[in-house]
Amino acid sequence: MSDWRNIPGGITAPRGYRAAGIAAGLKPSGLPDLALILSEAEAIAAGVFTTTQVRAACVDYCRERLQVKGSAQAILCNAGQANAATGSQGWIDAIESAQSLAQALNISSDSILLASTGVIGQRIPMSALKAAIPHLIAAASDQGSDHAAQAIATTDLVTKSIALETTLHGRPVRIGGIAKGSGMIHPNMATMLAFVTCDAAVSPPLWQDMLSRAADRSFNQITVDGDTSTNDTLLALANGQSRTPAITEPGPDADKLEAMLTEVCVYLAKAIARDGEGATCLMEVQVSGAPDDSSARQIARTIAGSSLVKSAIFGHDPNWGRIAAAAGRAGVSFGQENLQIKLGDFLLMEQGQPLKFDRAAASAYLKQATAKEMLPPDVVSTEVSNDLMVMKNGELVPFPRMTTSESQAQNVVTIAVSIGNESGSGTAWGCDLSYDYVKINAEYTT
Amino acid sequence: MSDWRNIPGGITAPRGYRAAGIAAGLKPSGLPDLALILSEAEAIAAGVFTTTQVRAACVDYCRERLQVKGSAQAILCNAGQANAATGSQGWIDAIESAQSLAQALNISSDSILLASTGVIGQRIPMSALKAAIPHLIAAASDQGSDHAAQAIATTDLVTKSIALETTLHGRPVRIGGIAKGSGMIHPNMATMLAFVTCDAAVSPPLWQDMLSRAADRSFNQITVDGDTSTNDTLLALANGQSRTPAITEPGPDADKLEAMLTEVCVYLAKAIARDGEGATCLMEVQVSGAPDDSSARQIARTIAGSSLVKSAIFGHDPNWGRIAAAAGRAGVSFGQENLQIKLGDFLLMEQGQPLKFDRAAASAYLKQATAKEMLPPDVVSTEVSNDLMVMKNGELVPFPRMTTSESQAQNVVTIAVSIGNESGSGTAWGCDLSYDYVKINAEYTT
Repeated sequence: MSDWRNIPGGITAPRGYRAAGIAAGLKPSGLPDLALILSEAEAIAAGVFTTTQVRAACVDYCRERLQVKGSAQAILCNAGQANAATGSQGWIDAIESAQSLAQALNISSDSILLASTGVIGQRIPMSALKAAIPHLIAAASDQGSDHAAQAIATTDLVTKSIALETTLHGRPVRIGGIAKGSGMIHPNMATMLAFVTCDAAVSPPLWQDMLSRAADRSFNQITVDGDTSTNDTLLALANGQSRTPAITEPGPDADKLEAMLTEVCVYLAKAIARDGEGATCLMEVQVSGAPDDSSARQIARTIAGSSLVKSAIFGHDPNWGRIAAAAGRAGVSFGQENLQIKLGDFLLMEQGQPLKFDRAAASAYLKQATAKEMLPPDVVSTEVSNDLMVMKNGELVPFPRMTTSESQAQNVVTIAVSIGNESGSGTAWGCDLSYDYVKINAEYTT
Repeated sequence: MSDWRNIPGGITAPRGYRAAGIAAGLKPSGLPDLALILSEAEAIAAGVFTTTQVRAACVDYCRERLQVKGSAQAILCNAGQANAATGSQGWIDAIESAQSLAQALNISSDSILLASTGVIGQRIPMSALKAAIPHLIAAASDQGSDHAAQAIATTDLVTKSIALETTLHGRPVRIGGIAKGSGMIHPNMATMLAFVTCDAAVSPPLWQDMLSRAADRSFNQITVDGDTSTNDTLLALANGQSRTPAITEPGPDADKLEAMLTEVCVYLAKAIARDGEGATCLMEVQVSGAPDDSSARQIARTIAGSSLVKSAIFGHDPNWGRIAAAAGRAGVSFGQENLQIKLGDFLLMEQGQPLKFDRAAASAYLKQATAKEMLPPDVVSTEVSNDLMVMKNGELVPFPRMTTSESQAQNVVTIAVSIGNESGSGTAWGCDLSYDYVKINAEYTT
């Protein structure tokens, strides 16, 4: 299945896309805070959104847009203010943002999609946003992916970006993606946002189905602290500029494209989990032997989200009991006599009973995986700017965010659980629970 | 409804009960570890158990017993070993424990109920248990409730005990209860156990219904870290020794008894939540305006279980956004324009939008509520004994557990949420998320 290759360029790697990220003065820190993704031609558009009852205006706006019309040409994203819990004025601001951009681009406002991230209860500073739109459009280029990735970030330690390429009928087809999110943070929460661009031509319902399935295997399988944001949004455009034959029904072409789309989503989702607040490692939980994939994913998610498992990993404790307990309470029926648990290469439990294992070696495995401190010790505040801030020469300055997550590739803890002999399998990703998590979410906010 | 009064005596306050708690040498610490609750006469018995797939032998044993026969005369509980993930040998040990006690009491072994708490994957030391049974029976007295409460405890900072009395047809009717549990702890988890005694006469299905409903409003509404134990058990006996008319169907008598039973369960459940690992306060979340009670309880539980809300409380941060976000993702549909949030006396949000409030005063409210450190600074380990240990004169000795929770009555943070105008309401209890939680669950276990 995986006959694709990594290419540079992020969301501007696929043909016919430009992107920009600028500092529009929305964030107090003065960091980039306004992003644009622009397709040359109207693109097939699909979206997956937060299921919470307390939603940002942009989420309701995009849902409504995509229901009326399965296509779009531009995505506008602001960082700094979530525009959630802002009532009818928030809705008016959303409409006005879309209209301002549409006017400046000279396209219909129903071709604009919106996303916001930042402090909930705060409106977008509309005059700053509107004043910035011409500059944003002028900055848009086919090299602009990293700028956009920077501009959507808030408390992220690294930006998240990927592009893959495969071949359909002899021609290259590309998918790019950027994302932000690192748990939920002061004063309310950090949102998970992901934007995907693709240059294949796909029919709207098929593209939406592909995206929903990919989200179920990626973004819906990560957990940092179990909390869902008011603004969580995944948007995907497919603009047909690869000039490959349009994919209108299931089949080998659709499968190939969906596999690559899923890989892009999984990469971005893992990058978000790894960047979880206070995390020292990425936890990957693989579940097999379940009656179906969805049950397996549910168990994987429950294990990855267990505070007890998370703090055991942080404490380098090869604690099979907590893993077994989390598997047991996931709401999926299985015979406990079939339960098998592996931590890295260490078999901890078989046939539902604990095995003798080299405890010191298993603990050393966890120690090595969590060796790298991800949060720099000089990060002191998220209060001032909805960005991570560090103290330098007595002054609070924005944290220098890394533009790649390559450096963290080694910090992975793998938990493999089998609950029977059936063919359902699934994977979830999370991170450990450290002192820094409590610190970020308690101390930093007072 | 609440025409009852507090009385001393715990589970031996109702007529016709004796209890005991002794050190049988099951725990390495040498603390009390074997408890007995004994009714003069065969009593109507009901139970509510963990719903996890990974269960202790005693849970399966009790479920099977209560299905066959809705009555019992004795409850035997060991602390130190959970007898979970112990396979068929664990099952044999459970049967043998019941048989040994039945023989010594000269009653049928199908009148024995069992509970275990402690390290999962470890068998009960059967020879020590069997040798201790005659001493346990000899120790049983109508003053024995506190001893039993001590013997079922593991990492609890305080024992949990209550007795209430009301009047039915001119005669006193009493319900007593003891419980243990403080989150889940090394090396695997701490179980929630609760045992209730009553001297009314109630028909078996009615008693089971009352207990299930009471559990839904109490033990099922507390959350320390979202993890369910392999051993969670609530057992309730009703032996008819009050000589009040038997309650065989719904009506005023049944309502009165159920209200008092619910109060006993709520008291014990709150005591468990307050004793949560590393907790500095009890969090009470009241939800109203929901379409039904069960939806309201679900929202209350989600808020009380949110890591973000929990760490905000610990950090004295009056963070309405996290409360709103948790309410929104609880899986209950409501209009966000109806959301109202109060923290103590502070109205933080109305009609779905944040209000201006005195932030410093609200933070001071949280500060005062969480002022008392519950975990003593010299607690250093839970490793050695499945009990809390402190360092004294260079030696690890058991932590001197308090026998009352009266002293902590003031540490309460109240969150009140309304989601609409309907009549459904519900309450949940939890605790804050502190550094000590991570410490207990990470550092203590390595």
